Amino acid sequence: MDTQEIFGVRAIIECIEANQNLEKVFLLKDQRSPLFKQLENLLRDKKVAHSYVPIERLDRFSNKNHQGAVATISPISYWDLELLIEKVLKEDKTPIFLLLDNITDTRNLGAIIRSASATGVAGIILPQTGSARINSDTIKTSAGALFTVPIAKVDHLKDAIYLLKAHDVEPIAISEKAEAMIYEVDFKKPVALIMGSEEKGISKGILNIIPEKAKLPMEGVIASLNVAVACGSVLYEIIRQQKFS
Amino acid sequence: MDTQEIFGVRAIIECIEANQNLEKVFLLKDQRSPLFKQLENLLRDKKVAHSYVPIERLDRFSNKNHQGAVATISPISYWDLELLIEKVLKEDKTPIFLLLDNITDTRNLGAIIRSASATGVAGIILPQTGSARINSDTIKTSAGALFTVPIAKVDHLKDAIYLLKAHDVEPIAISEKAEAMIYEVDFKKPVALIMGSEEKGISKGILNIIPEKAKLPMEGVIASLNVAVACGSVLYEIIRQQKFS
Repeated sequence: MDTQEIFGVRAIIECIEANQNLEKVFLLKDQRSPLFKQLENLLRDKKVAHSYVPIERLDRFSNKNHQGAVATISPISYWDLELLIEKVLKEDKTPIFLLLDNITDTRNLGAIIRSASATGVAGIILPQTGSARINSDTIKTSAGALFTVPIAKVDHLKDAIYLLKAHDVEPIAISEKAEAMIYEVDFKKPVALIMGSEEKGISKGILNIIPEKAKLPMEGVIASLNVAVACGSVLYEIIRQQKFS
Repeated sequence: MDTQEIFGVRAIIECIEANQNLEKVFLLKDQRSPLFKQLENLLRDKKVAHSYVPIERLDRFSNKNHQGAVATISPISYWDLELLIEKVLKEDKTPIFLLLDNITDTRNLGAIIRSASATGVAGIILPQTGSARINSDTIKTSAGALFTVPIAKVDHLKDAIYLLKAHDVEPIAISEKAEAMIYEVDFKKPVALIMGSEEKGISKGILNIIPEKAKLPMEGVIASLNVAVACGSVLYEIIRQQKFS
């Protein structure tokens, strides 16, 4: 199953006005028609992820006439974060939320979603921009889990963290700069686990607002982990504490 | 860095006679020259992994004249298992060995080697045949760890398990058919962790000779994990028990 695409300025405008779940819109630079301007305004107003690309990038989607604009439709429906939190907190179990910052590799994203499903994660929260697109690679590496874990997209992960805190869900950042090992953290409570990318880690602005940080122990000086492996290892420590201790 | 290749029957014979570390030899079917027969006999005698392939497969390696035979050279030197066990047991720490059965995805193999390095695994043991080749993808996904963890290749994993047992290293198989959860297993001793592939799991013949089996808890009916994530999660449970409890 592949991500679906929409071609042409007017078609994309109609999709947005019909509240279709657009993943991202790719636009040709320096277009000046009134219809194109209308699309640009809509994208800004409705906070749809979009970027400006050279024509070769648009041509790669298809040889269809794209008129300078191609949109990809998300294969899943995203949750509204407030609705998701409300639903989860009504359930009779200690929830785990998973926030992913800067995860740009589609295969890693798929493997993380798969682990989230296997460990009963209540919801995954992704930033509107700067995250890997959910494409056919993600679907494949998630082994179907993409359709079983609720996913919410938010404008800013910071706002999601404040909202979770307000609902007594404790944010815990996994960062190699942390002092504490994950085994020293109390996970027997509603937690929001925050994972960053291998290259950049968690953004500084987000790390600054999270008091509780932890790391996985590492042997050797240059050791590091694949982000999906690190995420799975921490999720299983949470499961151990919540259910097997 | 790419895997290096050797082209031509005589060149490959010379490599084997010079004890070069060949990864695998690819041969054209139905070759009847005496030199080709000599190569086939050498491959059998020296137990070098080889397989017979159609000419299109050989042509894909390069447009060089391959004369019906292409060998790939391993980018690393493999350890002799007995020497590796002796070296490891002399060290003043509780060792973890990692045995991989049927892991055929080069990227998963790389991620597993990376986790093994980060958790201080003493040695990885791979079967001579039926395992992913160590190629440029493996090197890349291992993030350099390929060159820090000792790796041994053995004809049969079963023999390696018996040898480890004889040295009081306890084999523990991770299998979804296990009754015990990994949290219920005592890992505070020298262990040989055995992981199988996502599709086939651990071979039945190997499972039969290992009394101790364990599994990771799974939520939901169809849940499963990427094998590198599963391996990392179990390695970190071993580390927790050995060093943080």
